[in-house]
Amino acid sequence: MKLLTRSYFEELDRTDPLSHFREKFSLPENTIYLDGNSLGARPKTALNRARELIDQEWGKGLIGSWNAAGWWDLPLTLGNKIAHLIGASPGEVVACDTTGINLYKVLAIAMRLRPDRKVIVMEGSNFPTDNYIAEGLVEQLGDGYEIRFVEEDALTRAITDDVAAVCLTHVHYRSGRALDMKKITRVTHQSGALSIWDLCHSAGALEVELNNAKVDFAVGCTYKYLNGGPGSPAFIFMAERHHGEARQPLTGWWGHADPFAFEQAYRPAENIRQMLTGTQSVLSMAVAEVGVDIMLDADMQKIRSKSKKLTSLFIDLLEQNCTDHDFVLQTPRSEVARGSHVSIGHPHGHAIMQALISRGVIGDFRAPDTLRFGFTPLYLRYTDIWDAVDKLAQIMASEQWQHRCFQKVEAVT
Amino acid sequence: MKLLTRSYFEELDRTDPLSHFREKFSLPENTIYLDGNSLGARPKTALNRARELIDQEWGKGLIGSWNAAGWWDLPLTLGNKIAHLIGASPGEVVACDTTGINLYKVLAIAMRLRPDRKVIVMEGSNFPTDNYIAEGLVEQLGDGYEIRFVEEDALTRAITDDVAAVCLTHVHYRSGRALDMKKITRVTHQSGALSIWDLCHSAGALEVELNNAKVDFAVGCTYKYLNGGPGSPAFIFMAERHHGEARQPLTGWWGHADPFAFEQAYRPAENIRQMLTGTQSVLSMAVAEVGVDIMLDADMQKIRSKSKKLTSLFIDLLEQNCTDHDFVLQTPRSEVARGSHVSIGHPHGHAIMQALISRGVIGDFRAPDTLRFGFTPLYLRYTDIWDAVDKLAQIMASEQWQHRCFQKVEAVT
Repeated sequence: MKLLTRSYFEELDRTDPLSHFREKFSLPENTIYLDGNSLGARPKTALNRARELIDQEWGKGLIGSWNAAGWWDLPLTLGNKIAHLIGASPGEVVACDTTGINLYKVLAIAMRLRPDRKVIVMEGSNFPTDNYIAEGLVEQLGDGYEIRFVEEDALTRAITDDVAAVCLTHVHYRSGRALDMKKITRVTHQSGALSIWDLCHSAGALEVELNNAKVDFAVGCTYKYLNGGPGSPAFIFMAERHHGEARQPLTGWWGHADPFAFEQAYRPAENIRQMLTGTQSVLSMAVAEVGVDIMLDADMQKIRSKSKKLTSLFIDLLEQNCTDHDFVLQTPRSEVARGSHVSIGHPHGHAIMQALISRGVIGDFRAPDTLRFGFTPLYLRYTDIWDAVDKLAQIMASEQWQHRCFQKVEAVT
Repeated sequence: MKLLTRSYFEELDRTDPLSHFREKFSLPENTIYLDGNSLGARPKTALNRARELIDQEWGKGLIGSWNAAGWWDLPLTLGNKIAHLIGASPGEVVACDTTGINLYKVLAIAMRLRPDRKVIVMEGSNFPTDNYIAEGLVEQLGDGYEIRFVEEDALTRAITDDVAAVCLTHVHYRSGRALDMKKITRVTHQSGALSIWDLCHSAGALEVELNNAKVDFAVGCTYKYLNGGPGSPAFIFMAERHHGEARQPLTGWWGHADPFAFEQAYRPAENIRQMLTGTQSVLSMAVAEVGVDIMLDADMQKIRSKSKKLTSLFIDLLEQNCTDHDFVLQTPRSEVARGSHVSIGHPHGHAIMQALISRGVIGDFRAPDTLRFGFTPLYLRYTDIWDAVDKLAQIMASEQWQHRCFQKVEAVT
């Protein structure tokens, strides 16, 4: 392989069709932010939207803003925008609550739609909260319900005719590995099960084609690649063919067919609104919309293309400059088989990440040994990748990192 | 009764020990806001907090703010502040999610703690979402579980030894009637059931003494009397004696005993953190804290005292100035038997409320015939009450209101 030089990365920046998006974000100086897969960067206009909402809509419009400012419909308005980013149709996505709560809703629906089946297939290595949520539901349902934990290599064999739902995360939070959504969904349907996907690490990071893959349900968050702000609301996708027949268990008034009739009995809305429960955090949701709007201006194929290049070049540079230091690539080498982050293992991973952070390169650490780097094509430059690996190589050469304390990093995915 | 005059209300304003709190809120000009029981007014410093969070904590601190800015602990920090307002101890309250979702959690716990009992007692006339949530849970549990809907007069008789939980709203969303929390909780415990209270219309409006009343669980919102902003997060109270033994079903990683260990199996935190599920909307929660902080500066006895006076004077003025117009008081006449809002019925209630709103008096309407007025002692003046009833009397005298269209008001409780 030809030796990579910084000038090559400078040239890539000059011809990058997404380069103008960086101006839309505010990033601290002297920082290379490789943790946008955990918390996306701040859009510059986020504060304007918050100001408008707080000063005008809340301060002046008061209660009238539920209608006048579109607050009541915001979960659907924002949902329709997210739908566009994940291959769904208008009316199939609603923004609300948290990923875990939303997963509970769709898992519970899936169990009701397949009453003769009692197994949920999941990856044991998945981000734990999905597994915990399924565990909570299964325990509540009792009566023989169970989770069948398998890993990727055993996945399709595990989807037998006792399976009600296959619930997988599209891009693995740790390794960055992307599953073949279309193929696995096909196998799932062949067995008569329903297909549920967690898009936390894929929405806004790569092309997601829910309807093309015939997915039944999906959930995801807006605070990673969609740059919605800390803890901004999650979303739910429910394929239109399930509207009307599905009924989720968190039956609050926002999901009622006629919420302002104040009927005593619950009657679910026939559309995606049924997935709502209670009053949503309007401020967080309105600011999340700013991030989603930026993403809608970008072309997802260009994003994916740059993402592949950024992750590939990062790995190439590691192989070129850091081969002597016991790093183990934990992410698939093939670019089509991964999302937009790269994980490398190292026995002193925690100390190395601390050293990187102190030099302005922000990634995160996942115990026991994973250094995780996220590549967000909207605001990262190719030269950032060069500079980040350069700093890593310097750290490894100086071995100064070995003296850093092994303090716990409590970053949040 | 002596004739009430405006000068009497002016005198009350001059001697009001809470009058300086009004400066802390931003209210539109020429508006008398009597809907703070639905959406509280905007604290002037709310935008400062949003700016700090968006610009500094998110924009500059990025992922590091989960620890450095206290985001991760915010549900507990805010919970402890709310605890102070509702007669709970530190560590017994956590802010999170929505009232409905939180009610689902505590109802599910109650059913698990009383496995031999299958009845939930609730008021049928309650704000519907609580009833819907219980309905969703009961349907999910199947197997003989049921809700026993009763009204206040039949309540204590309905609490028999098959009842697992008595789930009531302290102050009724429509009538404003306050239940006797201590007495009903005692009857509940005598029957062996658990006591759950919805504080949406009482937190920040009157003295709530959860521990004094020996309540087991409570839920509530922060966007009414606590002035947290549109859809700001709800809260959960769980009495300390239940910590460790209770297990809620929405088992997400935020409720795990060691969330960053990424263990495959769920293991609940032993403390109130167990009531959490997923990543919280930090922006909405941080702004909610501004409203709660203001409330902490005020004396709850003074708030209650002014609230009683405001509601009493409103009713007195109605009786003095509007007797000829078919209004029916729907709120208890005794001030100790009500919260901080007053409802009056009128066959043309909707049109009257529209006329009031067009004249700057903001209340809300609840079908079929209820005009509802909220009295928030922190930012209302006594003269506001005089002026509001004066405008109402003018409308009724002119009968102009009869010509207004009967357009639906979609206000949100």
